[in-house]
Amino acid sequence: MTDSEENAPVGSPFAAGEVGVVTPRDFVCPRPFTFKSGQVLPGFTLRYETYGELSATRDNAILICHALSGDHHCAGVHSADDRKPGWWNNLIGPGKAVDTRRFFVVCANVLGGCVGSSGPSSLNPETGQAYGISFPFVTMLDMVRAQKLLLDHLGVTTLHGVIGGSMGGMQAMLFAIEFPGYTRRVLAMATTARESAQAIAFNEVGRQAIMQDPDWNQGNYGKGAGPRVGLAIARMMAHITYVSDASMDRKFGRRKKTTANGESYTFDVQFEVEGYLRHQGQAFINRFDANSYLYITRALDQFDLAHAYGSLESAFAPVQAESLIVGFTSDWLFPPEQNRQIALAMLRAGKRASYAELATDLGHDSFLLESEELYALIRAFLERSHIVAVDFSI
Amino acid sequence: MTDSEENAPVGSPFAAGEVGVVTPRDFVCPRPFTFKSGQVLPGFTLRYETYGELSATRDNAILICHALSGDHHCAGVHSADDRKPGWWNNLIGPGKAVDTRRFFVVCANVLGGCVGSSGPSSLNPETGQAYGISFPFVTMLDMVRAQKLLLDHLGVTTLHGVIGGSMGGMQAMLFAIEFPGYTRRVLAMATTARESAQAIAFNEVGRQAIMQDPDWNQGNYGKGAGPRVGLAIARMMAHITYVSDASMDRKFGRRKKTTANGESYTFDVQFEVEGYLRHQGQAFINRFDANSYLYITRALDQFDLAHAYGSLESAFAPVQAESLIVGFTSDWLFPPEQNRQIALAMLRAGKRASYAELATDLGHDSFLLESEELYALIRAFLERSHIVAVDFSI
Repeated sequence: MTDSEENAPVGSPFAAGEVGVVTPRDFVCPRPFTFKSGQVLPGFTLRYETYGELSATRDNAILICHALSGDHHCAGVHSADDRKPGWWNNLIGPGKAVDTRRFFVVCANVLGGCVGSSGPSSLNPETGQAYGISFPFVTMLDMVRAQKLLLDHLGVTTLHGVIGGSMGGMQAMLFAIEFPGYTRRVLAMATTARESAQAIAFNEVGRQAIMQDPDWNQGNYGKGAGPRVGLAIARMMAHITYVSDASMDRKFGRRKKTTANGESYTFDVQFEVEGYLRHQGQAFINRFDANSYLYITRALDQFDLAHAYGSLESAFAPVQAESLIVGFTSDWLFPPEQNRQIALAMLRAGKRASYAELATDLGHDSFLLESEELYALIRAFLERSHIVAVDFSI
Repeated sequence: MTDSEENAPVGSPFAAGEVGVVTPRDFVCPRPFTFKSGQVLPGFTLRYETYGELSATRDNAILICHALSGDHHCAGVHSADDRKPGWWNNLIGPGKAVDTRRFFVVCANVLGGCVGSSGPSSLNPETGQAYGISFPFVTMLDMVRAQKLLLDHLGVTTLHGVIGGSMGGMQAMLFAIEFPGYTRRVLAMATTARESAQAIAFNEVGRQAIMQDPDWNQGNYGKGAGPRVGLAIARMMAHITYVSDASMDRKFGRRKKTTANGESYTFDVQFEVEGYLRHQGQAFINRFDANSYLYITRALDQFDLAHAYGSLESAFAPVQAESLIVGFTSDWLFPPEQNRQIALAMLRAGKRASYAELATDLGHDSFLLESEELYALIRAFLERSHIVAVDFSI
């Protein structure tokens, strides 16, 4: 029995080291928000959660940025009998790698999302209907600017760090670029400075599956309705890209679902992996909005630091944060090489940046999974003292 | 000017070295055919083409086996003004690696296919309607047995060689296993002895896209109708798996389709790769039957030599052919390792087998593309004299 187990409250539903019950809140920004596209919303809402306490000096905040299908609920549970903690609960909590005894952790559902933040499924006050695809186009920069307004609202004067994997890593980099004096540490994992043609291609097939579904209806559908078939297909396919050949083979191999004698001649589920994928698709359509899927994948595809700032080195020129970029060997969606290129460009731009490559066979989603090696890296990175950047070229 | 250019007939629409105009024929087998499933058809048709002449000794035949979306038309053109030669025209022809001056080349659309051979889109004489999914389930073994009946019909007494890539490679291996005294050379490329969970997963998403399309209607649809959206989605996704990240990046990168100023905020085609994929999907639905796609992908998923014969070594035990297995470094659908394992198992089973790995960055479809290195390998392999296998264990 370890010390922590010994000290856990007997009979408590929450083991020591858990965030416990959290309540999501809404940040309602009453001021007009101008998107990168030039479109304007009269205001917006971000749903968010916080864990830990903001320090008196207001500089102990860590922003967690979620990936495509994530949301603001990254740690803790929503009620005492909630068995499903937030998506990064293994990382965040008292005594964990992102230690909520020390840090004030903030996570918001992105602008354009569908879990409480303003997005295409929000009601347009002018029509009383959901915006659908009349919602302004959302870019990664719009997501980041909206989150900065939330942090301002919360009184955070300096970000101790911003952490994200995949799309969250893109946002983390943008924080350091757009708010250089504000952002002290960037931890970006399993990410890219711009998607390859293959990644765009997978997103496009998902979008086509949604938009060609007759129930999409040009984005006009009621709550709970919409292109459920298309969204499930998009999710099933995308899920394959989040894992790896090796991990699927280990988890399912060619095991048959049924114990039918010999070969079964049917188009129903035959291999376990088929049942698993169908479940992934069905679970997703009950929690995600198809239009948000279109918006967010488009934001992913359009993200291109080199294009937006002239070059990758120019993009990172204003950065004052120290950065840790982490790639995972089996990630074939945003491969290690694309992560390494980020760290190299930061170094070429004269910034403090490190690259770590973790050997896993779990694919892109490796950043979400339990890894003592990753936890140790993150813990040490967050404990480094921040050195104010000195520009020797001045 | 090279010798061959000099000798080409002036003004001929067919350069020297081309098969020229070919006419597909139908082999109608009037006898009942029992599928591996136990289901029986009263007879079947295979559409096929041949190039070159069968020798007096009837032992110069080479069978070409096509992949999932291929057909019998692998060389030559269908009319003098046909600008689109068969799918393996770069390989097959007078003086080419598969030299039609020397070999009698046969290629048939597989049983279960939709380009003239019996399959789910064929009319059921009992109902006057297409079979749809009442067509018997088709396995790789059924495809191979049907092609053997065609070769018997053509008077081929011995196969000089059987050649195939991807699904065609599976059939080539089965020929050597099921007809060992008949099959002298096996050339299998970009193939596998059984699909991984990831490959099954991609096929399953494609099948779901088809079967969840309301126009699939349990497989009952008229000619030219059917689940066009689902089939296009399946094809778009599958196409990504046939190429590579590197080749897509070289071909399209992140180039934008339109020359719109700055970012364009639209869900229409924005990147070139999107337009290319949509074209792939649309072209496919005009030439392929959705039910055939279900049947053939299921046959691919079920193919498992080790499972069917006890072990891979047992599967290859009866083989008398010499084998050349070719893997391509950038093939991530049926990776080089899966090809190498085939050759190793053949060697462990005491067979004459070689493995060649070609460095390409064109992905799975590398076997279809021009490669002097591949041509040289194939030419030399087909010229080797066949050594009758001696079983030293007797």
